Amino acid sequence: MALNLADYVASIPNYPIQGVLFRDVTPMMENAEAFAESIEQLAKISEDLNVDLVAGPESRGFIFGAPLALKLGVGFVAVRKPGKLPRETISCKYDLEYGSAELFMNKDAIKPGQRVLILDDLLATGGTGKAVANMVEQLGGVVAGFVFVIELEGLPGRKILDGYEVRALMEMPDSE
Amino acid sequence: MALNLADYVASIPNYPIQGVLFRDVTPMMENAEAFAESIEQLAKISEDLNVDLVAGPESRGFIFGAPLALKLGVGFVAVRKPGKLPRETISCKYDLEYGSAELFMNKDAIKPGQRVLILDDLLATGGTGKAVANMVEQLGGVVAGFVFVIELEGLPGRKILDGYEVRALMEMPDSE
Repeated sequence: MALNLADYVASIPNYPIQGVLFRDVTPMMENAEAFAESIEQLAKISEDLNVDLVAGPESRGFIFGAPLALKLGVGFVAVRKPGKLPRETISCKYDLEYGSAELFMNKDAIKPGQRVLILDDLLATGGTGKAVANMVEQLGGVVAGFVFVIELEGLPGRKILDGYEVRALMEMPDSE
Repeated sequence: MALNLADYVASIPNYPIQGVLFRDVTPMMENAEAFAESIEQLAKISEDLNVDLVAGPESRGFIFGAPLALKLGVGFVAVRKPGKLPRETISCKYDLEYGSAELFMNKDAIKPGQRVLILDDLLATGGTGKAVANMVEQLGGVVAGFVFVIELEGLPGRKILDGYEVRALMEMPDSE
């Protein structure tokens, strides 16, 4: 492969807090070839998971998740922050790397038995992913797996998601 | 065309405030056929605009904008709310339908002369779109046009964006 996706990740020291090396995937989406290649590779590592829907958390999960859904020929479920979905929802509270939050999903987004791929840009603590899985299962869906652009090493993400299929395009340390 | 995209818009009366009929596009993205058709149609009405980049505002602009960028073979610029972009940014303050806000863009996202398509789900007041156009032009880019899934009738969006090419997949009233 001529194009190395890791070259399209910007690394920002001490962001958002001292000691953290933040991985910024905006260069990957802004470059036509890198963006196409990222979605191609995400589809490749997802194709054996028999996916009926892709779910992605607000907001960067939308940028990779929606094109991946299109590529896989399935629908996209937007997992949203409070106050964004006007119809009937379910929700799940969870801990973030830097605080806590609550995520929401349309109550009619998933039919019982549907296999849902959960897609986000970064696997850090795994808290967001776990909350999305909780909602998928509340609705009777099956978590087909988790797919990330980057898995951060040195954080407990994969441990928190133990028992689920977890895949990523690349691994990177979360500090220098 | 067998599939009518308007059937995949949920209408919520008196949301977020009394008298407003909110148009919710989540059913369109959750349905595989409707989502694919929406991106197909968005690409069709964009293809003569000679687009180098697609820019979409957080967050629903990501869900339609990122797949459209992929379909058009260009990169995607995420236009974000405060505190989301860790590198050097430019910004623009603007008035919303229900309040005011400030949007941000990476300073290196657009090269001078690049033609940028601005994509969002709803054209309402046009304030968000105008703010994105302002940033595109601050960076020396050219606004190739605005494309929306839904243009709300009865709101001044198209007037605010006067002088720009403005297109939408469908028009809908903003009240009952």
